[in-house]
Amino acid sequence: MASSQKHCSILGAGLVGSLLSVYMARRGYQVDVYERRPDLRKAGNYGGRSINLALSDRGFKALERVGLADAVREVGIPMYGRMMHHQDGRLVYQPYGKEGQAIYSVSRSGLNFRLMDLAEQEKSVNLHFNHRCAEVDVRNKKVTFEHSETGASHQQAYDLLFGSDGAFSALRGSMMKSDRFDYSQDYLPHGYKELTIHPDENGGFRMEKYALHIWPRGQYMLIALPNPDGSFTCTLFFPFEGNPSFASLDTPEKVHAFFAEVFPDTLTLMPHLVEEYLSNPTSSLVTVHCSPWTFGGHTALIGDAAHAIVPFYGQGMNCGFEDCSVLDDLIHELGDDWSAVLPAYEQLRKPDGDAIARLAKDNFIEMRDLVADPDFLLRKKIEARIFEHFPDDWVPLYTMVTFSPDIRYSEALRRGKAQEKIMDEVMAMPDIHQTWDSPEVFQRICEVVTTHQFGRV
Amino acid sequence: MASSQKHCSILGAGLVGSLLSVYMARRGYQVDVYERRPDLRKAGNYGGRSINLALSDRGFKALERVGLADAVREVGIPMYGRMMHHQDGRLVYQPYGKEGQAIYSVSRSGLNFRLMDLAEQEKSVNLHFNHRCAEVDVRNKKVTFEHSETGASHQQAYDLLFGSDGAFSALRGSMMKSDRFDYSQDYLPHGYKELTIHPDENGGFRMEKYALHIWPRGQYMLIALPNPDGSFTCTLFFPFEGNPSFASLDTPEKVHAFFAEVFPDTLTLMPHLVEEYLSNPTSSLVTVHCSPWTFGGHTALIGDAAHAIVPFYGQGMNCGFEDCSVLDDLIHELGDDWSAVLPAYEQLRKPDGDAIARLAKDNFIEMRDLVADPDFLLRKKIEARIFEHFPDDWVPLYTMVTFSPDIRYSEALRRGKAQEKIMDEVMAMPDIHQTWDSPEVFQRICEVVTTHQFGRV
Repeated sequence: MASSQKHCSILGAGLVGSLLSVYMARRGYQVDVYERRPDLRKAGNYGGRSINLALSDRGFKALERVGLADAVREVGIPMYGRMMHHQDGRLVYQPYGKEGQAIYSVSRSGLNFRLMDLAEQEKSVNLHFNHRCAEVDVRNKKVTFEHSETGASHQQAYDLLFGSDGAFSALRGSMMKSDRFDYSQDYLPHGYKELTIHPDENGGFRMEKYALHIWPRGQYMLIALPNPDGSFTCTLFFPFEGNPSFASLDTPEKVHAFFAEVFPDTLTLMPHLVEEYLSNPTSSLVTVHCSPWTFGGHTALIGDAAHAIVPFYGQGMNCGFEDCSVLDDLIHELGDDWSAVLPAYEQLRKPDGDAIARLAKDNFIEMRDLVADPDFLLRKKIEARIFEHFPDDWVPLYTMVTFSPDIRYSEALRRGKAQEKIMDEVMAMPDIHQTWDSPEVFQRICEVVTTHQFGRV
Repeated sequence: MASSQKHCSILGAGLVGSLLSVYMARRGYQVDVYERRPDLRKAGNYGGRSINLALSDRGFKALERVGLADAVREVGIPMYGRMMHHQDGRLVYQPYGKEGQAIYSVSRSGLNFRLMDLAEQEKSVNLHFNHRCAEVDVRNKKVTFEHSETGASHQQAYDLLFGSDGAFSALRGSMMKSDRFDYSQDYLPHGYKELTIHPDENGGFRMEKYALHIWPRGQYMLIALPNPDGSFTCTLFFPFEGNPSFASLDTPEKVHAFFAEVFPDTLTLMPHLVEEYLSNPTSSLVTVHCSPWTFGGHTALIGDAAHAIVPFYGQGMNCGFEDCSVLDDLIHELGDDWSAVLPAYEQLRKPDGDAIARLAKDNFIEMRDLVADPDFLLRKKIEARIFEHFPDDWVPLYTMVTFSPDIRYSEALRRGKAQEKIMDEVMAMPDIHQTWDSPEVFQRICEVVTTHQFGRV
């Protein structure tokens, strides 16, 4: 380390840590990545959280720089819209964006393994498995690792350290012990449980392949994302307590009766659902905010370690990947002066992390409840029309977050709130459901929108 | 523990832990209190935080039940109002309540030692010093202690455990490791530093004895509380960063020049202030929220461990003492059924802890800034007059919090907000500064107040 070789240590070889290691290698750094778990590529399975994820433009943009975007797009399944499953069996489809715009269902483990492979192809990246970070002494730049299998512990000095070690980050735990570290973790009253729709007898998809399926039911919902093998991974987002809840559905009979009543089409799609429901784990949903993200120009949190969010905007991974590309932009701009890069990274990204955390919470209400509301659906239709009419000035919130990586999350949140107020005014126009697409009324809508200058001021 | 003897363990022999031990002993419990520090009564000094505190009616009410209120009132110094020191030397006095109402400046260590003595007078209370709680296994009801001097560690089973172990509670740290524990700690950008005004050459007070002195300066302030020996303990609440701040005042010359300009009367009151300023520590100000406060009907947080707040309403200790008296009421009501008592305690006190945390933050702005504002002072005068006129229906917020222990903090916050809105309307009346105490205008003020039903609905 006394050599002139630039050196960087990374905690966690998850999605963000693996991608970051490639970025840092390409910036000329010798990179050591320390991962708590064994090399799961060897076992071929994955011990982590939810099985699939929705990759969207911010994530693709970050993958593009390492040449991985096209390959991932090829194995992912594009979802062009939401397919709502109503209790009475009706299906209602709502596109996510303009024609051709999609979010991609990708396998978490598949993408992670691919990023680890890419990291190992870099000569200057070394992955160290079974290295659990026990403690970081950020003042003296030393990490204590424990070997996950042998328990043997050793201390390692570092020059530059990134904690991409997830929502329960060990680095963040150590930073929290210093004075004046702001921190919050708050859990939703809802948890989640994964269930599976298997492929049909011919290996085909039992529902529309190119959509994210939602069973919105007010206080809770079921969603399903397609997998390349013809299956769907379903996730039930459901209260822990109360009625109905994970606590109240505690016998096979109750589970069956509940799904038969509330999600009737799932019974034929998942003949095994009762067994799966009762044997699969229930997981909690946490949002983490903290400040500062960096320490001393040599230590930084990134990804979930800095800003764990709930999954309802499908942006957790995308935000973590964007952290990497923003950081890379700053290295490009400021060079290897980390006492400048890290504060700039924190100043730029902290408001965006806060914004997407809030958007993700808000979107749970949208997904589980509002998408079943005719007013809400009309609102989205009118917004889409305004967007067609003023493509540069009025971008719907979902589009800003998902398909507009050049608009920061914090800016999307701000404009989204302003646009929402304008849309409230539009929706209050008389007989709007019947008249909105008549030329005269749409003309009036455009006047409202331009009078408010698109919510820009 | 297999005997029929009821047993209770308490972490921390601070103000709240010591008082709680007396309450529990009087409810027939065998009580073990474990304190991290040695017995500071022997050394006669105190290693803890700020040297004096303001005791008010909620605290007195809780002390009364153990027969300690009168004794403490005798050694405390009643402060009947705020004495504002303006930069130009003007002194402005504002009473806290009605005639005779006061908050009491008491010595933190004096009161703590007294409560420990009282605890030891109870046959069934045992104080164990040098017992640092390292870990609590709340599922299996076991605490691991480390001896603060020898480092020897041992595990102890418990039946019922209270964590009155302060803002950085070890019990809370252990509870936080369980799933779905909501937690936040947030620091003010301000810190504090204590300074001393010594008695005059005759041992007398150098300023008005029966007042809390404030030097309000907008973004920061100095305050002073009287001590029985003729001295005052001053506390400077000041930003950590920026200009001016603890960071910017870093030489004797800068400190002297700053106090000479901003707090001119302090130079003669504290001829030694520069040395003291440069040698005394700077401490931070944290607010802690968490949920749940209790676990399994046998483990509970109390006092700062459950709700650390900033000191600007002088309610930290009072709130902790009130936790004890509320708990005692519940034992009286529900008996020793802790699976009923602890959930009831949490349900009742959590909203009050949240409310006083918010009130304390808001009051910093009032103390450092608003008390120097003529509008604000007039508002307080008018409110006092309304209070005289409608003593049952309109109680000023400060009075509700400080002198009305029968009004819950959460209710005080709610009514305070409603009253504030009504007062906004009153203050917007034309020429209010000139006319408010004319019979006609005061009649109109009363009409406004009664029209809004005193903010009750």
